[in-house]
Amino acid sequence: MNIRFLFYISGVLLVCLAGTLLIPILFSFYFKDGAAGAFALSAIITGGTGAILLFTCKTIKDELSVREGFAVVTFTWSFFCLFGALPFVFSGAIPSLLDACFETMSGFTTTGATILDDIETIAESVLLWRSLTQWLGGMGFIVLSLAILPMLGVGGMQLFRAEVPGPTADRLKPRIQDTAKLLWGVYVLLTFMETLLLMAGGMDFFQALNHSFTTMSSGGFSTLNASVGGFDSAFIDGVITFFMFLAGVNFAMHYQALRGRPKGYFQNEEFLFYLFLLIGAISVMTAFNYGSVYGSFWESLRYSAFQATSILTTTGYVTADYETWSVLILYVLVFLMFVGGCAGSTAGGMKIARVLLLFKHAQVQLYRMIHPRAVRLVKLGDAPVNQEVMQSILGFFALYIGVFVIASFLMAASGMDVVSAGASVVATLGNVGPGIGSVGAVDTYSHIAPFGKGVLILCMLMGRLELFTVLVLFFPSTWRR
Amino acid sequence: MNIRFLFYISGVLLVCLAGTLLIPILFSFYFKDGAAGAFALSAIITGGTGAILLFTCKTIKDELSVREGFAVVTFTWSFFCLFGALPFVFSGAIPSLLDACFETMSGFTTTGATILDDIETIAESVLLWRSLTQWLGGMGFIVLSLAILPMLGVGGMQLFRAEVPGPTADRLKPRIQDTAKLLWGVYVLLTFMETLLLMAGGMDFFQALNHSFTTMSSGGFSTLNASVGGFDSAFIDGVITFFMFLAGVNFAMHYQALRGRPKGYFQNEEFLFYLFLLIGAISVMTAFNYGSVYGSFWESLRYSAFQATSILTTTGYVTADYETWSVLILYVLVFLMFVGGCAGSTAGGMKIARVLLLFKHAQVQLYRMIHPRAVRLVKLGDAPVNQEVMQSILGFFALYIGVFVIASFLMAASGMDVVSAGASVVATLGNVGPGIGSVGAVDTYSHIAPFGKGVLILCMLMGRLELFTVLVLFFPSTWRR
Repeated sequence: MNIRFLFYISGVLLVCLAGTLLIPILFSFYFKDGAAGAFALSAIITGGTGAILLFTCKTIKDELSVREGFAVVTFTWSFFCLFGALPFVFSGAIPSLLDACFETMSGFTTTGATILDDIETIAESVLLWRSLTQWLGGMGFIVLSLAILPMLGVGGMQLFRAEVPGPTADRLKPRIQDTAKLLWGVYVLLTFMETLLLMAGGMDFFQALNHSFTTMSSGGFSTLNASVGGFDSAFIDGVITFFMFLAGVNFAMHYQALRGRPKGYFQNEEFLFYLFLLIGAISVMTAFNYGSVYGSFWESLRYSAFQATSILTTTGYVTADYETWSVLILYVLVFLMFVGGCAGSTAGGMKIARVLLLFKHAQVQLYRMIHPRAVRLVKLGDAPVNQEVMQSILGFFALYIGVFVIASFLMAASGMDVVSAGASVVATLGNVGPGIGSVGAVDTYSHIAPFGKGVLILCMLMGRLELFTVLVLFFPSTWRR
Repeated sequence: MNIRFLFYISGVLLVCLAGTLLIPILFSFYFKDGAAGAFALSAIITGGTGAILLFTCKTIKDELSVREGFAVVTFTWSFFCLFGALPFVFSGAIPSLLDACFETMSGFTTTGATILDDIETIAESVLLWRSLTQWLGGMGFIVLSLAILPMLGVGGMQLFRAEVPGPTADRLKPRIQDTAKLLWGVYVLLTFMETLLLMAGGMDFFQALNHSFTTMSSGGFSTLNASVGGFDSAFIDGVITFFMFLAGVNFAMHYQALRGRPKGYFQNEEFLFYLFLLIGAISVMTAFNYGSVYGSFWESLRYSAFQATSILTTTGYVTADYETWSVLILYVLVFLMFVGGCAGSTAGGMKIARVLLLFKHAQVQLYRMIHPRAVRLVKLGDAPVNQEVMQSILGFFALYIGVFVIASFLMAASGMDVVSAGASVVATLGNVGPGIGSVGAVDTYSHIAPFGKGVLILCMLMGRLELFTVLVLFFPSTWRR
């Protein structure tokens, strides 16, 4: 492991981060909200640190080793969490550094869990920065999951290797850049379209931009205390539901669709299972809410569809307090939090492809009980799934449950109640945001003890980086030269 | 599938069941509790049905096919649940047939979940029958898990194939009978020893016998409303803790130890991990309870050790209301409910061996991330684990979680609260008995809606028969001739 080189790359990325801090400065001048100084100071510290790392650690190295790849990804997200938190602290919006780091990690990992009890008193430019962390995090994650993680052998996207750069070193550099550019294009285009539609629905440009940033990234930060529910508009609910749905789909497929091959969606088994789960959840929820919570069928459908889509895509906006709904719906929502969106989307969770393959693996094992000599491979679409990929997915599942169990123990020890201890872990590990119990639809994470906040920060990071990326850094052999 | 043959075997076993109903009749005469008639009637109906099946379906067939094996096991447990419930109904102890079936399934599967709100008003012979169902179920399960399931390719015991009859048909019959006899001998011997020790601790013969029956089977039915806590004796707590611990160990190892090879325990990785988990849980619980719940260290140790052992071995006795303990302890206990005891013991849950191998599989997958070309096999002890067995264990894990999720949905739909819906499933699927929430340490299952009771009856059955055995019967191809 070449630590110098790690710091060098981190330096480059910190300088870029300092650059993005100029955007809220412009907004601050426009809104005259007095936070421009805080952003300028943050940009200087971030850019300065980046520059120092850049010059002191400069090394010439053409490519990363696999182990360095893991370290770079984890380091970058951690550094960004720390330096991205500075504007919150300097502007006085979030005086505690731990709380600010929680909010920033929640941003860059597109989780959407907040420690802000009153969002509406926060300066506009700070709110924009908060939304921007999610948008940048979402963009970073698409590139990560479609272009970088597959090279490292992590993530559901190993399944779609054909569509992304292969692991051969000579083809890597140009292909990553190409792929990244295309996907960023799709991401920016969809964000732009949503902004226009939200403005058509009555939002001003600032609100529309913030919400587009946090919809397309499956983030879920809002500018209102009541989240999207504060707009109380069926049109806005509909637009956001639709774009949340898009954000939960593999972005490579959106790219194919934009190139004129929209049929691709319906030939993709993961997409179909995603659709199936979502329609199933919406149907159950609409049926249970109709009559008991909402008098009209359409109202029941509107709120059920919004909440189901928001949770499955791990966005985390709310338009209704789902905790007042039936217990069955709560169970369905917690289940969806575990599942998450499609691989290659901005959504978190275990990912649809993995859950689908787990189900198929279990089915094959059952089949083998009665037909011990039959050879039956697990397939995704028409292609048999590589044995090593299947092993990795099964390992991921065991690790996901294992991390959930251990983190829940820690949250319980931090003083949370039975429901909230586990729910806070599910909601952060899955990068959802709101959970149930004391971190429910209408609650925040501000009341959690500092130790608990630290645990959840780590959960957000591990969830976003698909566990393996973070956990391998605990192996001593990763660090050997 | 030869259905006639299935009924024939069920007939034989029902006649045997009718025979065991004579035992409570003797007790009824001794205690003059007036339930002898109910048992006699039950014996006649059970024996009569058995005899009819035996004579009408008589077929000559030397051995079972694998598919028939699955069906026989599931049918037997289901028939026993139905006919074993008759004495409860006829004696008036449990007037509702559904409730009586719940109690009987809880008995034969050694779960220990009860719908009786006042145990102490029940006739002695009925209580003995209740305990006896657990003892017979425990005995049946040892034979099942050590001698029959491995032949069918199910269960953690595939790992120890060397110690049990292999899958070749010609060696089967004599070996099964030999193995079964030896294991029954160990089981009877340990039950006898515990009875003597409990009598030495001040129980009368009836109490001692009942509690030995339900300790060695990891069942947990007690004759007192306050469970073992009702005796309030440190000696009795100690004896029962020790025998619960033994009941959670692979009985083949007890047999080896009795033959003069006690070192075997400490050469067995599953046993060591079982010990490690138990000592870990007891330490955490003792530390958290000392000072906050109990003033003295020894008291804290006594109650923590009892509860931890009772839950990990899925026995389900209680001597303290653990729900008043810290939330961390509740999480540890729920985790232990999932884990369960060693393969080849009378305990339920996922089994220590499986959890250990899941952990190792995840570790190997992590290692492979940084050393993609390294070949590292999962080992248990010194022997590498067969790939097919590993696949089956991973499939089992996915199924276990899947059944837990679906059953929890159903329990939530039946009207239970957030905590109890999931907890009732964990506690029955793991054959534990008490859970948390409204089915906690000091509660019963009587308040659950009929639909919910039906779901939990199925959970107990699936948990006891290691999922696969029951689930394969839902494959249409199992039933094809």
